[in-house]
Amino acid sequence: MKLEAFTVDNIPLIKKGDDLAEIISNNIELDDGDIAVIASTIVAKSEGQVFKLEDINPSENAVRIANKNRFNPAFVQAVLNRSRECLVESPIMLVETYNGNVCINAGIDDSNIEKGFILDLPENPDESAELIGSRLKELTGKQLGVIITDTNGRAFKTGQTGVAVGVYQLPAIKNWRGETDLYGHALEITEEAVADEIAGTANLLMGEGDGGNPVIIVRGMNILTEEKRTVKEMHRPDDEDIIKKGLRCLNQSNS
Amino acid sequence: MKLEAFTVDNIPLIKKGDDLAEIISNNIELDDGDIAVIASTIVAKSEGQVFKLEDINPSENAVRIANKNRFNPAFVQAVLNRSRECLVESPIMLVETYNGNVCINAGIDDSNIEKGFILDLPENPDESAELIGSRLKELTGKQLGVIITDTNGRAFKTGQTGVAVGVYQLPAIKNWRGETDLYGHALEITEEAVADEIAGTANLLMGEGDGGNPVIIVRGMNILTEEKRTVKEMHRPDDEDIIKKGLRCLNQSNS
Repeated sequence: MKLEAFTVDNIPLIKKGDDLAEIISNNIELDDGDIAVIASTIVAKSEGQVFKLEDINPSENAVRIANKNRFNPAFVQAVLNRSRECLVESPIMLVETYNGNVCINAGIDDSNIEKGFILDLPENPDESAELIGSRLKELTGKQLGVIITDTNGRAFKTGQTGVAVGVYQLPAIKNWRGETDLYGHALEITEEAVADEIAGTANLLMGEGDGGNPVIIVRGMNILTEEKRTVKEMHRPDDEDIIKKGLRCLNQSNS
Repeated sequence: MKLEAFTVDNIPLIKKGDDLAEIISNNIELDDGDIAVIASTIVAKSEGQVFKLEDINPSENAVRIANKNRFNPAFVQAVLNRSRECLVESPIMLVETYNGNVCINAGIDDSNIEKGFILDLPENPDESAELIGSRLKELTGKQLGVIITDTNGRAFKTGQTGVAVGVYQLPAIKNWRGETDLYGHALEITEEAVADEIAGTANLLMGEGDGGNPVIIVRGMNILTEEKRTVKEMHRPDDEDIIKKGLRCLNQSNS
């Protein structure tokens, strides 16, 4: 078995209204089964998710958090606007977004964007993946999957990894339930985070900053499906999440 | 840029004393720069880290935790023996091992092993990676890296991913500090968890259970180094770890 991942070269600076599927299919020959892994930054730019900090009015709460962290209050307000819950306020802001992903700053980015502006995540990354994926299929006639990625930190470990924030025609989680191990026992470890692992693979080639490659093709995975899938299938149910409970405990004891 | 990952076929069932480097180099042609990604299970088996549950005497504490979780008390004792701290006791055991990795059950495995036995992780996976790596270089004359992997769960999300528990001649973390973004700003996101991303890539091909492929070659990464590196470089310092603080808060409020 073999998996390949390669960069799509010659992707220009993306601006609002650009047709990413057309740009990708003009720059690479796609095969049936390929997965196009696309950095959320260029999806957000093509969708016009760029905001001017000075247009955002910070609330009292945003000013309070900004003072703790020496952040720009308008930036804090932008993060709060995208967040269902702020799990950690300081020294970083760890939030659960309305899409259900738990991450720093709700995925809002102030790098790779002009000074004074911020770049939000696509509003519904699963839908963005579907739009780009169906357009790619229309242009190429191939069976394709799409993953939209961001980089997130991890619990207990430093370093960022690529993660899937949107998927199209592939599962976020692969279920191994019912298979047996080498000795015939039923497997207990039954779920593999395949979309995040593919996002991590792509991130190895995406790089950061001005040498970055925002589109990676992953070939050889054989996991495409016609079913509608979503990144939400990997969000741990709130009442089973011990780590969230711990962070809430800390917030209560600090307040 | 292109990355390839492929399985090494014909790896036999591994037993104590087997020379993994010889088995790998007999079954695949390696190139300079290749990274051999090896499942910790076969490293542990070759090192004889197999224990009989009935030889382990559970303490009172182990019996108490076992009763909460309906676990085998001897299994719980084995987990405690490998753990510096038990962050969560129930319904799962989330511990920090003496090697500094935070994971479920200290990485001890009761699948892919005969009934009544458990398989521990290698005692020092960085050292195991070095032993296998230097032997591989001796046998092949190539510059190679080694990653020993396990599968771990994640915070906030379901699903397991491949993670690096030992590295040889490659960094666990790649530092992007000092580089600039597309608009010339200094990058804030400066650390990438490359070893874990490569482990995740390999895990996409390793599979689980009786169809598993315990050795994967990753080619095209260009990140090997002569420096001594360790997975410990990605363990977040205890006093900066808000999630650990939260779990301790929860333990205190429950006790």
